[in-house]
Amino acid sequence: VKTIALLAERLRVEERQLMHAFAARGWDARLVAPSSLTHSLDGCEAAPATMVLDRSLATAESTLLAVLLSAAGATVVNRPATARLLADRVALIRHLVGAGLPVPRTAVCFGEESALETIDRLGYPAVLKTLTVDPAFPSAYIEDRDSAEALVEHRVTLGGERAMVAQAYIRSRHDRNVRAIVVGNHGPIAYDTRPTAGWRPEPTTSYTRAEHADSALAQVAAEAARRLGSGVYAIMMIESKDGPVITGAENLVDFRALSESGLDVAGAIVDHALFVHEHSRES
Amino acid sequence: VKTIALLAERLRVEERQLMHAFAARGWDARLVAPSSLTHSLDGCEAAPATMVLDRSLATAESTLLAVLLSAAGATVVNRPATARLLADRVALIRHLVGAGLPVPRTAVCFGEESALETIDRLGYPAVLKTLTVDPAFPSAYIEDRDSAEALVEHRVTLGGERAMVAQAYIRSRHDRNVRAIVVGNHGPIAYDTRPTAGWRPEPTTSYTRAEHADSALAQVAAEAARRLGSGVYAIMMIESKDGPVITGAENLVDFRALSESGLDVAGAIVDHALFVHEHSRES
Repeated sequence: VKTIALLAERLRVEERQLMHAFAARGWDARLVAPSSLTHSLDGCEAAPATMVLDRSLATAESTLLAVLLSAAGATVVNRPATARLLADRVALIRHLVGAGLPVPRTAVCFGEESALETIDRLGYPAVLKTLTVDPAFPSAYIEDRDSAEALVEHRVTLGGERAMVAQAYIRSRHDRNVRAIVVGNHGPIAYDTRPTAGWRPEPTTSYTRAEHADSALAQVAAEAARRLGSGVYAIMMIESKDGPVITGAENLVDFRALSESGLDVAGAIVDHALFVHEHSRES
Repeated sequence: VKTIALLAERLRVEERQLMHAFAARGWDARLVAPSSLTHSLDGCEAAPATMVLDRSLATAESTLLAVLLSAAGATVVNRPATARLLADRVALIRHLVGAGLPVPRTAVCFGEESALETIDRLGYPAVLKTLTVDPAFPSAYIEDRDSAEALVEHRVTLGGERAMVAQAYIRSRHDRNVRAIVVGNHGPIAYDTRPTAGWRPEPTTSYTRAEHADSALAQVAAEAARRLGSGVYAIMMIESKDGPVITGAENLVDFRALSESGLDVAGAIVDHALFVHEHSRES
């Protein structure tokens, strides 16, 4: 039996769907908790499976794990280079800017004082984010100078943040957040949206499938997917009054609502993973 | 007047020596605090100087700054690729292991439980370090299982550490820590040592110049410098009973004792920086 490791701390609806989809194709998928893993740096460590599907949120740690597993001979989806772009906010924005794609005005600030000056220059409201995705470290919505001073101080003193990403806040003209869902290497396979409450998605809602995307949005999403490459991820977008803007990209960790809408996301992910595995064995 | 930016939060003895050495060669060196810097990601940001000498400890943040300044057209010493190896402990160890150089037995642990299992397997005493150099996050010396449990728990709960480097502790047979000092591209220009107290350098001492290095040490240091490339850094070494072992590499932030011994370190750094600048303008 051919086995694949699903990297995730726990079994959610999505991982069960993936296991079924693997089983239907003759593969045995097993849940492997990243927190259970150790990787020796002696140059002769074996990966826990020849094929690994990373089902955790892309962070610096998950990217390193992907790099080490890949170096140990495993096929890893997402590829380490893609995982890095999903974890490293500055690398992602530079990549998108280099491709001429629309992103919020963004600056990296290397200290408390420069952060305040930068937010003043970007204008209010603005958003502060960590350089690298960190599920334990909040992003901050900043409405005015007083709020900027308080939040920067708290991030630096409580969080030990030494550099941060400051971005202009982009308001949605439809009061919603949009995701373009990429699985494989042919661009977005679907779009879903979630109502905005205040400055971020309403917490009690989840993304629901959008029947169609407007052409400007679809065009930007397709070009972004082409630049980010094949993989399994969501491109986060806001429809601003000046057109679509990309605000980030994430591993596609949740897709149960898309599955319920009739789209076989798990099947598409598994087909992509098996395609990458086949292809890597050839090379 | 040609100007160069010295990246450092404050003016120490070393930066004064560098300013004098630059002035003697017709350059005006100015202190620029990284915390005062902001870098827009709009693709058209100019660097604060055409030449930058990074005098801060290499961290993820300082590496990003080097990358951004370099992309904006500045010559940056150390080069971003070298800075990254000095900041990223796992990348450094993998690089050294790939070159067949002696390092402590090392593993990356992706969770609390795997860290404890790994330390047990490495044996006691062991050392825990962050994945990336972080001046605010201590390394831990671990003598036994109880100490391992307590320290891993504290690092995870208080520091939010999600993955860590575990290493076998290497005892010096001469009770001292050794640095091989690299400036330029011809390998180590000097060695200095510092007495070990307990498991790390005695805090009240500083490195003092070693008249000569034994041949095994010099050979390992020269090969490491060849693999890490040109730059300004110190290779940290321990003389174990089984020969020299590399425990890390750092930006050469402090060199006043070497200067006092008669070695013109500031002059060598400045000559190297000007050489790199000349060379980058040609290409």
